[in-house]
Amino acid sequence: MNDSLFTSIDGGVCAPLGFASSGLACGIKEPGSPKRDLALIVSDRPCVAAATFTKNRVPAAPVLLSRRHLETGAPRAIVANSGNANACTGARGMEDAVEMTRRTAETLGLQPEDVFVASTGIIGMPLPMERLRSRFGELAAALQTADSNAAAEAIMTSDTRPKQVAIELEAGGCRIGGIAKGAGMIRPDMATMLAFITTDVALDPSSLRQVTLEAVEDSFNAITIDGDMSTNDTVFVLANGAAGSVDRETFRAGLKVVMLELAKKIVRDGERVTKMVEVRVQGAASPAEARNVANAVANSNLVKASWNGEDPNWGRVIHAVGHADAQIDPNRIDIRFGPHLAARDGLDAGTPLDHLIPVVQAREFSITIDLKLGSGEARVFSSDLSPEYVDFNRAEYALLRNRERQKAGD
Amino acid sequence: MNDSLFTSIDGGVCAPLGFASSGLACGIKEPGSPKRDLALIVSDRPCVAAATFTKNRVPAAPVLLSRRHLETGAPRAIVANSGNANACTGARGMEDAVEMTRRTAETLGLQPEDVFVASTGIIGMPLPMERLRSRFGELAAALQTADSNAAAEAIMTSDTRPKQVAIELEAGGCRIGGIAKGAGMIRPDMATMLAFITTDVALDPSSLRQVTLEAVEDSFNAITIDGDMSTNDTVFVLANGAAGSVDRETFRAGLKVVMLELAKKIVRDGERVTKMVEVRVQGAASPAEARNVANAVANSNLVKASWNGEDPNWGRVIHAVGHADAQIDPNRIDIRFGPHLAARDGLDAGTPLDHLIPVVQAREFSITIDLKLGSGEARVFSSDLSPEYVDFNRAEYALLRNRERQKAGD
Repeated sequence: MNDSLFTSIDGGVCAPLGFASSGLACGIKEPGSPKRDLALIVSDRPCVAAATFTKNRVPAAPVLLSRRHLETGAPRAIVANSGNANACTGARGMEDAVEMTRRTAETLGLQPEDVFVASTGIIGMPLPMERLRSRFGELAAALQTADSNAAAEAIMTSDTRPKQVAIELEAGGCRIGGIAKGAGMIRPDMATMLAFITTDVALDPSSLRQVTLEAVEDSFNAITIDGDMSTNDTVFVLANGAAGSVDRETFRAGLKVVMLELAKKIVRDGERVTKMVEVRVQGAASPAEARNVANAVANSNLVKASWNGEDPNWGRVIHAVGHADAQIDPNRIDIRFGPHLAARDGLDAGTPLDHLIPVVQAREFSITIDLKLGSGEARVFSSDLSPEYVDFNRAEYALLRNRERQKAGD
Repeated sequence: MNDSLFTSIDGGVCAPLGFASSGLACGIKEPGSPKRDLALIVSDRPCVAAATFTKNRVPAAPVLLSRRHLETGAPRAIVANSGNANACTGARGMEDAVEMTRRTAETLGLQPEDVFVASTGIIGMPLPMERLRSRFGELAAALQTADSNAAAEAIMTSDTRPKQVAIELEAGGCRIGGIAKGAGMIRPDMATMLAFITTDVALDPSSLRQVTLEAVEDSFNAITIDGDMSTNDTVFVLANGAAGSVDRETFRAGLKVVMLELAKKIVRDGERVTKMVEVRVQGAASPAEARNVANAVANSNLVKASWNGEDPNWGRVIHAVGHADAQIDPNRIDIRFGPHLAARDGLDAGTPLDHLIPVVQAREFSITIDLKLGSGEARVFSSDLSPEYVDFNRAEYALLRNRERQKAGD
C-alpha cells in the first residue's frame, strides 16, 4: 500500500488531525454482552461531508435520516450501532434514528442535523432504545484521539476482526483514515457495509462529492461476497481541513487507496471466506460491459464453489461470461488463472493442470478474461462460496426473534 | 395434475401415437459404465417442430446445429447424449454434432436436417466420438413404444431419477408426453436443462411455436436453482398429428401442464435440494416487475439458505424485494409464509413463530409477496441452498480432466 505518494500509518479514523472516536458495549447485540455495539466519531471543527447510500429500495430509517442531514446539516459527527439494523421498523424506527442523532448532538453541543447515523444488524425488530438512551454521555466521555479500535469494533456484526486503514499523503502531510464493517451480503452497490472515512484535507463540497463517488465505484462497489444488497449500506466521508489543502488528484488517489484497502479487508473477512479472487476483464466493447462480465463471473455460485474447491475450472468461468449482458465472441475468449492461459480462443489451452492448480490453491489469486473485442476493462474482488457459508446463514431469525421476545417478556 | 381436461398416463414421450424411444450406455459418462448416456426419440411420420434454446452467449455446438435444423429441416428425431456438453469445443465440436445427426439420419433413413441434437455434461472437452460412432444401429434397434425410461435415463447427469410426464387430453384423446433432465444450474432462461416433448396432436407450425413459447415461459423459465445459465439448454417439441387436431386453447393448457410438471420435477431433484418453494408476487405495477421481484427473492443466496435452515425469515425476503428492479413502497409490502402473514405493511405482523415455523418445515411451501401497488402477478419455483450443494459443486473439473487425460494416454 505504500508508494511514493502515500505512507501507511496507524490510528484509523483518528489519524487525521482533529478527529476523535469511541465505542461502547450497550447490550444491543445481546444484553450484558461485553461486545461493543455503539460507536462515535467526531471532528473538533466543522466539516465538509460526502456520502453514498444503499440502492436497495427498502432503505432503513438511519439511511433516510442521514440522507436528509447530508442535504440540510453540516455533519461533524457519526453515531453508529451494530446488532440491530433499524430496518423495516416503520415510524418507530425513524423516531429512534432521530433520537440517536438528537442525543449525540446534545451531548456534543451540536445540532441534530450535524450528526450522521448508521445501523447494522438484524432487520425487522425495533432498536432496544432503553439500552442506548442513557449511554451517550459516557460515549462522548470515552472519545480519544490515539486510535479507532473501539469504534471499529463497535460496528462489527459477523466480522471476525475490526477493519482500519490510515495513510499520510507525502504532499503536505495530510492524512486520510477509515474504519469499515462487512462480513455478509457484500456486493457491488454496497450490501450491509458501513465505511466511515475521515480526512484533515480542506476540500470544497462538490469536489469531495465527486471524488467520493469515483473512489466508491472503484472500491466498495467493486467487491462482492454473496450477491445480495442491504437496506443499510452507507459510506460517510468527513473532511475537516485541519491540515490544509492538497491537489485534488493526489487526494483522489489517496482516498481510493484507503477505500480499496478497506474493501479488500471486507472481502477477506467475509463470512466463512477462504479465498479472495480478483476477476479482471479486458478487451470488452466498453467499460460497462467489462463490469457486467466481471460481475457475472464474480457472482456465479458455481464459479465461487469451484474456487472453494481449488478447481481451475475455466468451463464454469466461460459459462458465466456467456451469461453476462455484453458482446461476446465465444471463439475469441482467453482465460488466465494467474499468469497461466487456461483457455485460448474459447478452447482448452492445453496448459497442464499442475501449472493451474497451484494458482487456485493460494489464498488470493486473479482470473483474467480477455474478450479481445475492444478496450473496455474492469476488475471486481470476490470470494469463494463455502459449505460453511451456507451453514452459517441457514438460520438466525427464529433464534434471534425468540430471544428478543423472551427478553420483552411475551 | 388431473382435472376435467387431462388424465395423467404412463409412457413419457412414447405415450403419443407414433413415437418410439431408446437409450444406450456408450461410456461417455465413464468408459465401461452401465449408465445410459445416449438417447433417441423418433416419430414414424413427419412432424411439425418447435424449440427454444439457451440465451447464454456461448452456445454449444449442438444448440447452434439444432437451431439451423429447426429452420431448414423437417425434424422427426432427437438424438441426445449426457456426460459431455460438447460446449467450448470449437470446430471439432461442430463436426461431432454434425456427425451425430448424420449417423442418426442414416440409420433411420432420414436427412441429417431432420434430426435435432442435444448434449449435456462437462464443458470444454471434445466428445469421445470413438465410443459413440459405432452405436447408432444398436440405438435404432432398441427403439420401442411402451415407455421412455431408457431415454429419460440416458439424458441424466447429476439427476438422481429420470423425469417423465404424459397426459391424455379428454378432448379427442390426443396425448402429450415429455422427458427432461436438470439437476444443477437451473434458472429462468433454462440452465443445463433439456426437455423433449412429443404429441400426436396436429397443429400448424406457427401455432405450435407460439404455444411452445408461452408454455416455456410459465414453466421452464419460471424455475431457478442456482442462478446460472447453461450453454446447452434446449426444449424440443415434436407434433406428428397421428391423433388428429384439438382446439388450440386445450392444447396450450395441456402443454403447459406437461412442461410445468417436468419443471417442478427438475426443481425437486436439484442438486442437494431439500425444499421446493413457490414464490408468488402480486400487486406489482406490471407483470414484468412482478417477475423481477419473484426472481430477486428466488435467486437470493441468503433467502435460499434460510429456507434450508427452516427459518421463516421475512427480513431477508424484504431485503431481496428491495433489491429487485421494480417499483416498491416499503411501507405497503405484505409477506405471507403459506397462509400466515409474517409482515404487514413492511413491518413484523406479530404472528407467533410457532405458526410460521411449521410452514417452512414442509418439503414444499409458498411465500406470497403482495406489493399492493397494481395488478402485476408472477410466480417462480425455487429451491433451498444447502451446504451440501456447495460441497457437491466444489470440484469436478480437475478430477474429470485428469481422468480424460489419463484415458487419452498423456
